[in-house]
Amino acid sequence: MKGLPKGFKSIGGIEAERIERARQVFFELFAGYGYRLLLPSSVQLFGPCWECLSGEVRSRIVSLGTPSGETGCLRPDLTLAAVSYLSSHYAPEERPLRVCYADRVYRIPSPPDNDVEYFQIGAELLGWESEGADIELLTLLLKTLDALDVKENFIVIGDVTILSSLLKEMPESSSLALREALTRRSFSSFREILDRAPIPESLRRPLEELPYLRGGAEVLERATKVLPKNCSTGSVRNLVEALAVSGFKDRVLVDLSIARELDYYSGPVFEVFCGSHGRPVGGGGRYDGLLSSFGVLGQAIGFSLNLDLLLYGDTSSISKPLTVMSWPGDLRPERAMRMAAELAACGVPVEMSWIDQRNRSIELARRRGYRWWTDLSDGSIFDLEKNTLIERADWSPEGGRT
Amino acid sequence: MKGLPKGFKSIGGIEAERIERARQVFFELFAGYGYRLLLPSSVQLFGPCWECLSGEVRSRIVSLGTPSGETGCLRPDLTLAAVSYLSSHYAPEERPLRVCYADRVYRIPSPPDNDVEYFQIGAELLGWESEGADIELLTLLLKTLDALDVKENFIVIGDVTILSSLLKEMPESSSLALREALTRRSFSSFREILDRAPIPESLRRPLEELPYLRGGAEVLERATKVLPKNCSTGSVRNLVEALAVSGFKDRVLVDLSIARELDYYSGPVFEVFCGSHGRPVGGGGRYDGLLSSFGVLGQAIGFSLNLDLLLYGDTSSISKPLTVMSWPGDLRPERAMRMAAELAACGVPVEMSWIDQRNRSIELARRRGYRWWTDLSDGSIFDLEKNTLIERADWSPEGGRT
Repeated sequence: MKGLPKGFKSIGGIEAERIERARQVFFELFAGYGYRLLLPSSVQLFGPCWECLSGEVRSRIVSLGTPSGETGCLRPDLTLAAVSYLSSHYAPEERPLRVCYADRVYRIPSPPDNDVEYFQIGAELLGWESEGADIELLTLLLKTLDALDVKENFIVIGDVTILSSLLKEMPESSSLALREALTRRSFSSFREILDRAPIPESLRRPLEELPYLRGGAEVLERATKVLPKNCSTGSVRNLVEALAVSGFKDRVLVDLSIARELDYYSGPVFEVFCGSHGRPVGGGGRYDGLLSSFGVLGQAIGFSLNLDLLLYGDTSSISKPLTVMSWPGDLRPERAMRMAAELAACGVPVEMSWIDQRNRSIELARRRGYRWWTDLSDGSIFDLEKNTLIERADWSPEGGRT
Repeated sequence: MKGLPKGFKSIGGIEAERIERARQVFFELFAGYGYRLLLPSSVQLFGPCWECLSGEVRSRIVSLGTPSGETGCLRPDLTLAAVSYLSSHYAPEERPLRVCYADRVYRIPSPPDNDVEYFQIGAELLGWESEGADIELLTLLLKTLDALDVKENFIVIGDVTILSSLLKEMPESSSLALREALTRRSFSSFREILDRAPIPESLRRPLEELPYLRGGAEVLERATKVLPKNCSTGSVRNLVEALAVSGFKDRVLVDLSIARELDYYSGPVFEVFCGSHGRPVGGGGRYDGLLSSFGVLGQAIGFSLNLDLLLYGDTSSISKPLTVMSWPGDLRPERAMRMAAELAACGVPVEMSWIDQRNRSIELARRRGYRWWTDLSDGSIFDLEKNTLIERADWSPEGGRT
C-alpha cells in the first residue's frame, strides 16, 4: 500500500503546515465577519441541480457506489454542498446565511494536470438583495489574498449576462461552440467560429470585440460604445468603482469575455490570478439561478480558491519552531515527561529523545536543524550552534543567554 | 441534491465549530511535542498490508474505482495512511518520526450505527526502541482528553501478546471463535466456546480467568497467579505505574482481555472511554509488526479518537461571539465595509446587514441573538438587551458602557 492511486496524494511536512496555516488565517478572517464554518460531506448524490454544472465539469466527476447502494460522487465542488446544506438546514427567516469552508474537492484531471484531489477554501453569502453583498464578498476575497500574503494577486471581473445576452439569439450549435472557445480562452477558435457562423451583423461586431474588452476600468467606456444597449455593464462598473474606493484599484481588472460556467452563474463573475500562474487560482460570482434550483429565492454569491495553486511556490518560511530536543538522561520516562511538560507550559516546543546514548541524541538534534538540546536530568542546555553548555536559569529559547 | 447518501453528513453551526476547536487544541498540543501535521490522501489503494486489518474491518471498507482505473477505497483508517506516508517519504536516519492528523475516515456501518463518515484525531510515533515512546504517547493522549475537556474519561490498558500466546497452541477454529467473541466483548459466547472446545487444561483456567482480569492495578497481581509464566504482564505494569506517577492513577485501568485487532497490534494496546459511552471512543497501541510489513523495522505506537463520539453530548457552550450587526444606513457599501473593518481590526466580530430598512435589520440582529446593533453611518450602537442607544465612544463590546 505504499503507492497511492494516481492523482491522489498525502501531504506532510511544511506543505501541510502551509495549508493548515492558510486554513486558520482564512477562518479567522471570515469568522470576524459573521461567516460560520461548514464541514461538507465528502460524498454527494447526483441530483437535478447537477444540470447547473457545465458538461466539462460533469464529465470530470468521480463517481462511486455508496454502501447503501446509491450512486454518489466525491464532491466536485463545495458551493453545491454548501447551498444544499443551507437550503435544507435553515428557515427562510434565518437568511442571510454566511458560510466558509476549507476542504478537499475531487475532479478527474484534464491533461496536463494529474491531481484528482485538491484543497479549496471558499465562502458563500446567501439571501441578500443588494449589491452590498457582492462588495462584501469581493472585499473579503481581496483581504484573504493579502492575509495569505499571495504575491502579485489581482482579480478580473466580468458579467456572464453580457455573453448570454449576445448568444441567446444565435443558433444553439454556434452558441455552444463560441462559449466553449471562450471557456478555453481560445480566442483564435472563437474568431474562426465567428467567421463561418451565420451571425446577424448587429451581433457580429460586439462578439468580435468581446475578447478585447479586457483591461482596466477604461474597458467599460469602450464596452458602452460597442455592445448593444441591452448588454448592461452597470454591475461590473459599480463593483470596480467600489473596490477602487476601498483601496484595491491596482488589483481589479475587467474582462467581459469571462465565460465562467454559464449555466451556474447568473450575474457578475470574477477570476483570481497570482504570481506566475497563467490560469486562475480561483474565482466565483453570483449564482441566483442555481440557488432557485434548490427552491431558495434570492441572491447568492460565493468564491473558492485552489489552495494548492495559491500556495505553490510559496517560499515564505514558516518560522522555525525553537524546538528543544529533550533527553531524559537517567530519569524515568514519566519523570522526563513532567520536566518536558514544564518547558511546553512555558511555550517552548520540545521533542523527546528516548535514545540511550547522549551523543546519538545530540546528533539527531543536529540532523533536525534544532539549535537547543537539553539533558532533562540536570537541566543543562546545549547550544548546538555555538557548541556551549548553558544553565537552564540563564537560558531563553529565542536568544540563548538571558 | 438536497439529500446526501445514507451514512454521510454535512456538519455546520456549533457542531462544526466544536470539531474545528478540538482539531486546533489537539494540533497545538502535539505541535508542542514535535509532532508534525499530516493530511493523508482520501483514497488509498488496496495492498498487502491490508492483511493486517481484521476481517471485520476489511469487510467494512468503502471501495471505489479511481479515475485511472485502479481499485481503491475511501481511507478506513488514518494509521495505515500515516505509516505508508512516513515509510515512503523519510529515510531511516530521519527516524523517529512523529505525526498527528485530524480527518475523516470511512467505514460501512455495522448496525445500529448509520454513519459511514466520521472524524478522527490521532497521532503516531515511529522508530523509537524504548518504553519512553509508549509513555510519551499515552501521556499526551490523556493530556488531549483533558485539553478537550472530555468528561469522565479513562483509558484501559491491555497487551495483545497475552491473548495471542494463550491462543497460539489451540486449533485455529476455536482460536478464531474465541478472539471474535472477545472482540465483540461477548463473554457469554466466549465461555460457551471454551466449554465445548478441546482445550488443554493448562490453558483452560487462564482463558476462563481472562474476562475477569479487568480493573485497577490489583488485576496485575491476580494475573501473575493465573496466567502461565510465558504471559508477561511487565509492559502493562510499567505503563500503569508510570502513568500513576504522572498523576493519572484514577484514569488508568487494566483489561487483559482486550482483543484489539490482533493482526495489527503487537504489544500493549489501550482503549479510551468517556462519559456514558459503553464502547470505546478511541484507542491504539503498539504495531511493530504492521510497521515491518512496510519494510520499516522498529517500534511504532499510535492512537486515534473518534471525534463524533468524543464531542457527542458536549454541551459546553462555545462562548458566544460578541458580534455587532452592522447596518450601513445611507453609506455606500464600500464605505460601510471600511467602517466595519475598523471594528474587526479591534477584534470585534461584525455581521453586515445590507437590508434597506433599519427596523428589519434590528429585528434580524435580535433573531440572531446578538446584543449589539450599529448604524455605521452615525456610529451609534444599540443595546438590544436594554433597548438603549450608546455613543460609539462610550461603548465596549464586553460590557456596554465603558
